[in-house]
Amino acid sequence: MKRIKYGLSAIGLAVGMAMSGTSFIAFATEPTLSKADFEKAQLHYFQRCAGCHGVLRKGATGKNLEPENTLKKGQKRLEKIISLGTEGGMNNFDDLFSKQEIANLATFIQMEPPVPPEMSLAQMREHTKQYIAPKDYPTKPMHGRNWENFFVVIERDAGKAAIVDGDTKEIVTHIDTGYAVHVIKGTEHHKTQHTKDTGRFWYTIGRDGKVNKIDLWQTPDKMLVAETKMAYDARDIAVSGDGKYVIAGGYWPAHFVIMDAVTLNPLKVVSTRGYNTKGEFINEARVAAIYTTPNEPTFLVAVKELGQMWQVDYRDLDNLRIEQINSAEFLHDGFFDPTGRYFQIAANASNKMVVVDTKDRKLEKMIDVDALPHPGPGANWIDDKCGPVGGTTHLGVGLVSVWGNDPMGHPDQAWKLCYEVETDGAGVFIRTHETSDYVWADQLKHPEPEIQQSVQVFDKKTREIVKTIRVTEEPGKAALHIEFNKGGSEVWVSVWNRKDSKNPTGEIVVYDAKTLKEKARIKGLTTPTGKFNVYNRMNHKT
Amino acid sequence: MKRIKYGLSAIGLAVGMAMSGTSFIAFATEPTLSKADFEKAQLHYFQRCAGCHGVLRKGATGKNLEPENTLKKGQKRLEKIISLGTEGGMNNFDDLFSKQEIANLATFIQMEPPVPPEMSLAQMREHTKQYIAPKDYPTKPMHGRNWENFFVVIERDAGKAAIVDGDTKEIVTHIDTGYAVHVIKGTEHHKTQHTKDTGRFWYTIGRDGKVNKIDLWQTPDKMLVAETKMAYDARDIAVSGDGKYVIAGGYWPAHFVIMDAVTLNPLKVVSTRGYNTKGEFINEARVAAIYTTPNEPTFLVAVKELGQMWQVDYRDLDNLRIEQINSAEFLHDGFFDPTGRYFQIAANASNKMVVVDTKDRKLEKMIDVDALPHPGPGANWIDDKCGPVGGTTHLGVGLVSVWGNDPMGHPDQAWKLCYEVETDGAGVFIRTHETSDYVWADQLKHPEPEIQQSVQVFDKKTREIVKTIRVTEEPGKAALHIEFNKGGSEVWVSVWNRKDSKNPTGEIVVYDAKTLKEKARIKGLTTPTGKFNVYNRMNHKT
Repeated sequence: MKRIKYGLSAIGLAVGMAMSGTSFIAFATEPTLSKADFEKAQLHYFQRCAGCHGVLRKGATGKNLEPENTLKKGQKRLEKIISLGTEGGMNNFDDLFSKQEIANLATFIQMEPPVPPEMSLAQMREHTKQYIAPKDYPTKPMHGRNWENFFVVIERDAGKAAIVDGDTKEIVTHIDTGYAVHVIKGTEHHKTQHTKDTGRFWYTIGRDGKVNKIDLWQTPDKMLVAETKMAYDARDIAVSGDGKYVIAGGYWPAHFVIMDAVTLNPLKVVSTRGYNTKGEFINEARVAAIYTTPNEPTFLVAVKELGQMWQVDYRDLDNLRIEQINSAEFLHDGFFDPTGRYFQIAANASNKMVVVDTKDRKLEKMIDVDALPHPGPGANWIDDKCGPVGGTTHLGVGLVSVWGNDPMGHPDQAWKLCYEVETDGAGVFIRTHETSDYVWADQLKHPEPEIQQSVQVFDKKTREIVKTIRVTEEPGKAALHIEFNKGGSEVWVSVWNRKDSKNPTGEIVVYDAKTLKEKARIKGLTTPTGKFNVYNRMNHKT
Repeated sequence: MKRIKYGLSAIGLAVGMAMSGTSFIAFATEPTLSKADFEKAQLHYFQRCAGCHGVLRKGATGKNLEPENTLKKGQKRLEKIISLGTEGGMNNFDDLFSKQEIANLATFIQMEPPVPPEMSLAQMREHTKQYIAPKDYPTKPMHGRNWENFFVVIERDAGKAAIVDGDTKEIVTHIDTGYAVHVIKGTEHHKTQHTKDTGRFWYTIGRDGKVNKIDLWQTPDKMLVAETKMAYDARDIAVSGDGKYVIAGGYWPAHFVIMDAVTLNPLKVVSTRGYNTKGEFINEARVAAIYTTPNEPTFLVAVKELGQMWQVDYRDLDNLRIEQINSAEFLHDGFFDPTGRYFQIAANASNKMVVVDTKDRKLEKMIDVDALPHPGPGANWIDDKCGPVGGTTHLGVGLVSVWGNDPMGHPDQAWKLCYEVETDGAGVFIRTHETSDYVWADQLKHPEPEIQQSVQVFDKKTREIVKTIRVTEEPGKAALHIEFNKGGSEVWVSVWNRKDSKNPTGEIVVYDAKTLKEKARIKGLTTPTGKFNVYNRMNHKT
């Protein structure tokens, strides 16, 4: 399994030109595995390692794991790292894999990384199917429930999405989706279009690239209406403002796919492989996140390793206009300001929040924040001194950073840090509501169970933490992700059942948004993760 | 040298999903070569085969030459094909390579194609140098010659460009350039900008990706002023309408690079790898040709294997706007209509002329023509019945196709075939001038020496061939490429010295544009190929 060296001298290249991408490795005893062990290790790598290290092992959030690096470390040292994790932030895997599985993984990463296949439009179309023909879609809701207060909930390790009635707290149904859904998005109101069925259709994207379409007007048994597959590994999805198109982004292949929102028929695929802001070619230039712009006829595609936001105009797919907006590596996730003009996204390897002006389709600003910003759905509110502000949690530190985001009304405060709030632990998600006095932040990344199981709430006026809420005390459980209901009177927090992640022993805990007191527990959910309130999401209530 | 199969079943892919890009080849005795022979065969392949078959051997103009196909043919059959050529249009190579070299090439193409390295901006910058510092550029011409009637002439197999004085017919100098320069472009007048030094600076692009800048105001010994390298294999170059940027396109890596036109410092690199019009991923999506648009602040990048024209706006490199315009495979070369709004380019595998509307940045039309259209610099003129027309020669047939290209004034004729003129042989270049009654076409692709050595001239009014001109009768020579002088009173035709291609035994033959009689022979040129008259090119006189 040696690579072939490309004879640079043979094609008359100048001496001294550094080679990239290929190298000649010669060693007497190559680490190797049986075919069965290789495929199993490859599967484990794909499921648990590729997210941070990349399928080609070039590294991103995690380190480069190509043989030229891993061979130097050797089998024993690699086994130890995989078992126990690192100071640098890598988890331990000795609770997930057996000793033999860890040994095989250590060997696998010393072998040449296999390159996964490409996927053509024709291959995607083979997976497109209608469970309900569009002509049979109902013209009004087929149930008496208040569907605008539904929560669409990711049940990560079940490969399902749960529909939860926000009024009654009942689980309406569980819908089969792709593996480990990362995000679910619904149709949203657009500046140029508000229709009576906005918010009705929801689209899930599995880590396996499977796309499912959900119709909230259907009876529970018929809510899954269509399906396709657009990649082998994927993370995000969005719906165009006119409701005509769905776009999803691939980790592998590195591309985005625009589909017909009615049938999910893939119409257009565009590669995101390219050059990062330093001018280095990145084969695995992954689409981390995709959003629809509330005011413009465009999508925003965050190309993680390129440090570029691509603003893609969906009005003419055959003459596709894209602005490739340079910012900083590695782009992760973000949210709009209240006007919908500016998009605020974390560049987590650069410790920056990047701001894109979607009207002028250009970079507006970059704001220095702390280690590994990660806003999740984000939070916007009004600060007494700075005016309109946005805020983010950080994966690397227990801190909420808050910046001004109103360049028209508050130019002096715009895109500058306004203040910071220290929390007990590093977190993943922040959230508030326009009717609420408070901002909520989780602490999922903190190693201590007590902190990981608690969310913190701070006051918009005093900028002080007013309450630490222990959401669960059960061993092996953690609290994460906050979402308000329609109207903002309730706050929903997820509880992951990490140690029993295949069974419906997770829950959502509902709090009163004013008194901050527990109101209800919704049980019977498997690793509930992201929750999306239909009304808030379709109206861009962040 | 086996490829590693990516275990699709392991990552839960549906059965029946066809694999692309990887396959598992097992054979008892693998064809192989010594390192030295491998590198030599690789060099021969790169120089003589990659242009049609691609460095990755996926095929384009030529057939796919991956091991799964070549192994079936076997060593003997492959040697025969390389020696004698094919009916399908491949040349014989037994006059170029020895028997052993052909045998090694046959073995080489049965081995896995080595993937050439990438090239970063930093690597390109290592090759950037100034022979004359920009501060030392003269402020007026340093010689008394009429530089606007200079011809910049490619001397292909010498790796040089000759500067020829169009008034005196003297060779002013030979300038070192990259290997086998394909195209040379100068600064051009733009709708928004006419400066007194437009046409002064010229830029060459070698097949080896080397870029050289020529200053026609300098004394002959100082005309080469700057240099860089933007790829390992390249074909075309252009200068922005504002004179600020130079853009060049790579065959490998598949990308385009925007450089500072003063220093040639590479500023921006953009990958062209992507999906063709059928939605299949193309790793080797080569930039066949690049043009500057006369009216818009954009470049047109023809991405050959994608069948896409990319219109690239150069006003903001950090927020780079690109329209990816779908048309047809494989895009090759083209020319503007007289208004500068429409670009007409050959899609030679589809037998179409593609028309791009550069104002609206979209596909205008596709015109069906005959086998393998190839206009080279192209020709526009006025036809009595159809009004303004454009025309192309074909590589596959002795035919000039003529279409209307004035959608405003002659909407009924626009983008439809107006008429065809049969010539004696398939050709590569067509040319005329607004002051001329005639259109000239070469016949370089015809196998008979007599026809290959002749160009044909037809009358714009009668649409009939009025003269066949035997440009040379010397064995091993061929006539090609036509260019008018400033003012249009002369027609210059190149004579290739194919059998003696390393020596200056080629020539340019000058004809009177009215009488069609020979006027002069300019000797001392090595394989003179494309010729670019400064005045005509800077004023878009096609």
